[in-house]
Amino acid sequence: RVNGDRLWDSLMDMAKIGPGIAGGNNRQTLTDSDAEGRSLFKTWCDEAGLTMGVDQMGTMFATRPGTDPDALPVYVGSHLDTQPTGGKYDGVLGVLSALEVVRTMNDLGIRTKHPIVVTNWTNEEGARFAPAMLASGVFAGVHSLDFAYNRRDPEGNLFGDELKRIGWVGDEEVGARKMHAYFEYHIEQGPILEAEDKQIGVVTHCQGLWWLEFTLTGKEAHTGSTPMNMRVNAGLAMSRILEMVQGVAMGEQPGAVGGVGQVFFSPNSRNVLPGKVVFTVDIRSPDKAKLDRMRAKIEAEAPGICDALGVGCSIEAIGHFAPVTFDEKLVTSVRSAAERLGYSHMNLISGAGHDACWAAKVAPATMVMCPCVGGLSHNEAEEISKEWATAGADVLFHAVVETAEI
Amino acid sequence: RVNGDRLWDSLMDMAKIGPGIAGGNNRQTLTDSDAEGRSLFKTWCDEAGLTMGVDQMGTMFATRPGTDPDALPVYVGSHLDTQPTGGKYDGVLGVLSALEVVRTMNDLGIRTKHPIVVTNWTNEEGARFAPAMLASGVFAGVHSLDFAYNRRDPEGNLFGDELKRIGWVGDEEVGARKMHAYFEYHIEQGPILEAEDKQIGVVTHCQGLWWLEFTLTGKEAHTGSTPMNMRVNAGLAMSRILEMVQGVAMGEQPGAVGGVGQVFFSPNSRNVLPGKVVFTVDIRSPDKAKLDRMRAKIEAEAPGICDALGVGCSIEAIGHFAPVTFDEKLVTSVRSAAERLGYSHMNLISGAGHDACWAAKVAPATMVMCPCVGGLSHNEAEEISKEWATAGADVLFHAVVETAEI
Ligand SMILES: NC(=O)NCCC(=O)O
Ligand SMILES: NC(=O)NCCC(=O)O
Repeated sequence: RVNGDRLWDSLMDMAKIGPGIAGGNNRQTLTDSDAEGRSLFKTWCDEAGLTMGVDQMGTMFATRPGTDPDALPVYVGSHLDTQPTGGKYDGVLGVLSALEVVRTMNDLGIRTKHPIVVTNWTNEEGARFAPAMLASGVFAGVHSLDFAYNRRDPEGNLFGDELKRIGWVGDEEVGARKMHAYFEYHIEQGPILEAEDKQIGVVTHCQGLWWLEFTLTGKEAHTGSTPMNMRVNAGLAMSRILEMVQGVAMGEQPGAVGGVGQVFFSPNSRNVLPGKVVFTVDIRSPDKAKLDRMRAKIEAEAPGICDALGVGCSIEAIGHFAPVTFDEKLVTSVRSAAERLGYSHMNLISGAGHDACWAAKVAPATMVMCPCVGGLSHNEAEEISKEWATAGADVLFHAVVETAEI
Repeated sequence: RVNGDRLWDSLMDMAKIGPGIAGGNNRQTLTDSDAEGRSLFKTWCDEAGLTMGVDQMGTMFATRPGTDPDALPVYVGSHLDTQPTGGKYDGVLGVLSALEVVRTMNDLGIRTKHPIVVTNWTNEEGARFAPAMLASGVFAGVHSLDFAYNRRDPEGNLFGDELKRIGWVGDEEVGARKMHAYFEYHIEQGPILEAEDKQIGVVTHCQGLWWLEFTLTGKEAHTGSTPMNMRVNAGLAMSRILEMVQGVAMGEQPGAVGGVGQVFFSPNSRNVLPGKVVFTVDIRSPDKAKLDRMRAKIEAEAPGICDALGVGCSIEAIGHFAPVTFDEKLVTSVRSAAERLGYSHMNLISGAGHDACWAAKVAPATMVMCPCVGGLSHNEAEEISKEWATAGADVLFHAVVETAEI
């Protein structure tokens, strides 16, 4: 079993870096806080005797050697970056539990045939630079390095410039590493495990996603002196599209979600009808047909809604991944570990996207999940118990050691 | 008749200060650009032999003496501040035409019994510091000086601090001046004069307004892993309220408008359902019963819309003025001037709020309007012709001279 207290202490130490305003964290990718978090993590890896490699996306790979020089490594990781108002566990639990796995192996003197690589992927959240899971996407060959370097944050800063600025451009070619297997442990970020009173989620699938960015063009005009019938109201069109997206998602229940997290009015002044409204739609489903049908419905209905108001409508797909089925052998190894350790468990479909979803494109991959209070995540109030954290780390430890072969 | 070329040149000179990004202006109140515009205006007033007074709200009063030491002045003015993406004429036309009136009186050697005071009110737009018409509101006793000084811009700066920073805190007590009459010349900011092919709007009324600020409280949550039935979606509630406001305004046609210019999502991240949405509703009507009924309907329906989604709803009235009926004698003097000068004219109700609406509380007041292309205002593309500008200034000149008595 892992050392749950040590894991918890590390979680609390990391949470001190980039504190939020309500008990959580704001340690967005490629900020000074991210750099500070990376340094602390590197120190811990050094102390555990690991060798650090960094690739051109800034992803950190800390290796514990195996006994067979020809055996490919087992990768175990997640991300240390957070949302602007994020929790202390989303991502961080996975990276620090991977570290706890090797710390425990060190304690117990366990040697494995395959090396173990504790991994911290850059920019998983995608809050500052869309899309999410950027570094693992480049690793899996989904995006080019050039595409990634040219992503811009809302202030217009380039990803490539910011990575250089914080000093974490590595020399390894992205994706050159080959994996024997990839494991990721994460909080559920949803309500199911808690509702079903299970300690462990055995993650069999991850739902797919489309991120659609809408740009609506209205006519900037005075709210007082512009008669109702002369308005070209981009804000009203946005409202109707939000309602339509809600309807499309409800029409595909169960097993689908759709919503809007980001809206920008321009010029955003009380007495000016917006000339431009930009917003993003996030739709997901584990069922590829449903996912694509939702996108098609939304793209079919939005132009009519806008036309009726004279509003211009352009839609760009800025993020996508197809539903993922995780590796059967690794899934079984997670389930057996939970069984062996006496933890209650159930099969789960991940609602959120994870680096594991891209890793699954280039290696056998799977995930372990633990519950979080009220299903709350992407919220500073995100909470888990030390017991939940420990149970998942125990399962991760067993599954990793089994896969890395003693 | 006034000198239309001189007026136009002054308009173009002022437009060079605080240029926008699309041919208009961004000279928001109490910015460095505002200070620069004030200095240029002061220079012109000095050159015209006027004496400048400034009150504690930074409003500028440039006096041309009258022949009767006991006669109260005729005030003529508007505002030099603009929207963030504003036009070159909204407000500016009124201030510089007032200046053109005294320049023309100087040219013609006209002396009047009543002094003439060319006026530039501070923060008419209310874009940076709500509410609009702030300085004239304090002048008319609607707001306290303390209330005004404590208004904050979106960055959190205080009005009082910014007024001091740009160096325009005057020593005059606000509202101590008494007026014989107040005239304001302004572009229509609406489509009616152009559609009816009239050169002059004889403004008989100004419609009333309510600004309501909504704060909706949802639950910040992950867009992917939060099932539809567990969402507390403040963004969806906002959408439904926008649609409801549209319906309420349409239900009061003709003679009412309602819309939303400003929306803030928080945290405004693609994969986070907003925990908080703040937005402002702007409703107006020349009919007080309609105006108040719209507010009552909106305030009655919004909580139900939010309740159905579990969203918290708080509504604050942050701006208001009742419909105004302008002074009959002054209105007649504007109409007769247009008649005498051979300009086509019609009665008009102002769709926008103006400093004249507050001045009307403490003095006989009225307005003159000229058309603007496509009714467009609060838009950098706002446009008028030199001929339109001149016709209105001619009418203003005649009405002012008549009221100030030769
Ligand atoms: N786990 C997580 O929040 N990932 C970010 C990408 C997503 O929105 O699913
Ligand atoms: N004229 C003008 O745009 N005033 C600002 C206040 C309002 O929105 O009516």
